[in-house]
Amino acid sequence: MNQDTPLGGHISKRFDNELEDMRHQVLAMGGLVETQVANGLRGLFESDSELARRVVQDDDKVDRMEVDIDDQCLKILARRQPAASDLRLVVAIIKTINDLERIGDQAEKLGRNQLELIDDDAGSSHCMKLEHLGNLVSKMLNKALDSFARMDVDEALKTIGLDEKINAEFDGMMRQLITHMMEDPRTIRNALRVSWCARALERIGDHSKNICEHVVFLVRGKDVRHIGLKEQVEMVSE
Amino acid sequence: MNQDTPLGGHISKRFDNELEDMRHQVLAMGGLVETQVANGLRGLFESDSELARRVVQDDDKVDRMEVDIDDQCLKILARRQPAASDLRLVVAIIKTINDLERIGDQAEKLGRNQLELIDDDAGSSHCMKLEHLGNLVSKMLNKALDSFARMDVDEALKTIGLDEKINAEFDGMMRQLITHMMEDPRTIRNALRVSWCARALERIGDHSKNICEHVVFLVRGKDVRHIGLKEQVEMVSE
Repeated sequence: MNQDTPLGGHISKRFDNELEDMRHQVLAMGGLVETQVANGLRGLFESDSELARRVVQDDDKVDRMEVDIDDQCLKILARRQPAASDLRLVVAIIKTINDLERIGDQAEKLGRNQLELIDDDAGSSHCMKLEHLGNLVSKMLNKALDSFARMDVDEALKTIGLDEKINAEFDGMMRQLITHMMEDPRTIRNALRVSWCARALERIGDHSKNICEHVVFLVRGKDVRHIGLKEQVEMVSE
Repeated sequence: MNQDTPLGGHISKRFDNELEDMRHQVLAMGGLVETQVANGLRGLFESDSELARRVVQDDDKVDRMEVDIDDQCLKILARRQPAASDLRLVVAIIKTINDLERIGDQAEKLGRNQLELIDDDAGSSHCMKLEHLGNLVSKMLNKALDSFARMDVDEALKTIGLDEKINAEFDGMMRQLITHMMEDPRTIRNALRVSWCARALERIGDHSKNICEHVVFLVRGKDVRHIGLKEQVEMVSE
């Protein structure tokens, strides 16, 4: 086994570099996923099918990045046998890229649904309803990646709190869409497509929340999943 | 570090037992998740709100199992520092329980949507449309867990193929629902709820597929995600 002599807290300087490199790759993947979400939204707002098609195509790149980083994480686990915070970092990366890949899938859905929209006035007016939700979700994703980049638990916990706002916005939007559908059944097809885009955005919020939870776990070594925000804040400030 | 002397392929008999125990816990979690899906569906088919409420409540149990098994996996990684197929098993378990937890979330959605259905004839007739899709998805989940239990790559690959059938069934169902909504806009609310249940079922199919892919990775050490079924079969039979 190719293992270097322990140097300080880590097995070796080279191992430090490997971990740092992994972190950078996750952030690069995060950047790509952010672009995919932004382009997916822009495709919808600007009725730009060319852009939507590109988003669908580029999902492959996101997928490849996940497989790649995942593979490197496994190699690190096997060769370096990290412990404590290094082990938590590797496991947090494996989970984070899984969430990023799924955010990528949701961005792809924005693209696919844009391509299926029937080109009419009602369609574009429905799309514009996604603007507020889209902005909220993009902001949340950005903050989640930021808290990962800076390993900032406070930022991560604050960002987790945004998820409820997104869910409320989503519910309000769905009520509006249902009213429109009932008033004008001819718009049902497009309204449904838009509702699926809203659902995709809401799920991007969920995955952003997961990423924040990985950050808390990574820094504090505590699992904050599946408990309320208040308990989360109490738990990490113990 | 509490590490025993190597015995044969593994570090120790005790380590073998630990891994075996982990596998059993995953299967127990799988069993619980299957029950949740079955009850979620039964709640819808039999308009049984009591059962639906129980499904929503019991999602906590699924969540706790995930956190628990995840925690044990981390401890194994830290203490035993497994390599090769043992390492793949631990990583495959971490990923599989994540998928199981998300299947649990989808089952919870079946329950939640049942509780929100407006009690009328159209509602129950919509629900019955979920029967075929629900059966397909339950079968796929069962086969996925079976392939995990028996580490059966052939079964896993065959099961992955079911996902396309489920997607086709989902698309057909959505077309039917849209037609109904356009014909009778008063049923839109219920039809939308049912469409979300259909979407939840379709996602259970996706997660079952993921579980099968973890099995292939675990047994063959090859990552088969994000490639077509044909390529997957070729890849593992190389």
